Amino acid sequence: MSFYAAPIARLIEEFEKLPGIGHKTAQRLAFHVLDMPQEKVDKLANAISEAKQKTKFCSVCGNLTDSDVCSLCNSEKRDSSVICVVEDARDVVAMEKIREFKGLYHVLHGAISPMQGIGPEDIKIKELLARIRDGNISEVIIATNPNIEGEATAMYISKLVKPLGIKTTRIAHGIPVGGDLEYADEVTLAKALEGRREI
Amino acid sequence: MSFYAAPIARLIEEFEKLPGIGHKTAQRLAFHVLDMPQEKVDKLANAISEAKQKTKFCSVCGNLTDSDVCSLCNSEKRDSSVICVVEDARDVVAMEKIREFKGLYHVLHGAISPMQGIGPEDIKIKELLARIRDGNISEVIIATNPNIEGEATAMYISKLVKPLGIKTTRIAHGIPVGGDLEYADEVTLAKALEGRREI
Repeated sequence: MSFYAAPIARLIEEFEKLPGIGHKTAQRLAFHVLDMPQEKVDKLANAISEAKQKTKFCSVCGNLTDSDVCSLCNSEKRDSSVICVVEDARDVVAMEKIREFKGLYHVLHGAISPMQGIGPEDIKIKELLARIRDGNISEVIIATNPNIEGEATAMYISKLVKPLGIKTTRIAHGIPVGGDLEYADEVTLAKALEGRREI
Repeated sequence: MSFYAAPIARLIEEFEKLPGIGHKTAQRLAFHVLDMPQEKVDKLANAISEAKQKTKFCSVCGNLTDSDVCSLCNSEKRDSSVICVVEDARDVVAMEKIREFKGLYHVLHGAISPMQGIGPEDIKIKELLARIRDGNISEVIIATNPNIEGEATAMYISKLVKPLGIKTTRIAHGIPVGGDLEYADEVTLAKALEGRREI
């Protein structure tokens, strides 16, 4: 027998399914919901179902959007000749937050990973090549994650894009700003040395 | 300008309002929701609004329930001559988990706190006295929290209940099991000494 009335037990169970939310936190959240006024509870519940219903992938770049083409692809202020290739829609947000990049994005929705059975045809590489062929692209910046899958994907894409005569770059790997040389792992340090620039 | 499409930004905002959920966690939860199948998202959203809609307070003891009288008050296996007085419905769950107590509960929905302007008439003490007068009660166990408000409430209730000729007890304060004498605060240690029992 559960110690809670059925609707509360169900809510705790649902909260527990979310990442990083254990049983105690789920209980705390559930009781918080019970303490909230009905109107705020409905707002939360609506936000959850609407976020899923109203969000789709931009038909151009694959970013998350609530319209057919995302606000970045639609913007006239963006430089449409530069495409930054990322693995995930979250990475678009990370890039946008630095407020430095003014080009467009291409979201791959994954990275090549033979271990997990994800090949080049499973991620949006075809779509990227189509965009490059159709548009007037001057540079493709590959900003996949600096791990084995991300590097493999970056290599694969560069081998396809470079022959088209388009500048293909990879974001720099090195010591993070504020990081400590002493604690940097060897691969990162080696990459930092390799990528050194004249000052 | 938000970096997220409107429905996502709204969801992140709603998640951030929950206790213990910061901006980063709210983002992670929101993206998790977007990755979930629609049917599971709806289940979560429904659980949230239904928990609030369908839950009410038991008309007898004030515990959270989805029926008029809670399953504890309704149960024929419980000893209706003993009432355990707690501050909150969460405390009922904590007590039930030990599987030792077989009586009924009375939820006060708060504790007397002059600092916060909560007087005896603001919590369900009247209802407790009515239950005691109507029923055949042999013992009232006061299990309010061991802080100033809880102690004041316990004292107040015992002064009202004792003159009715009913055994009134307070749960023991002392060193928690598995605790360390060295690190116990003085008040707890003093209470533990005061409450010593012959072995």
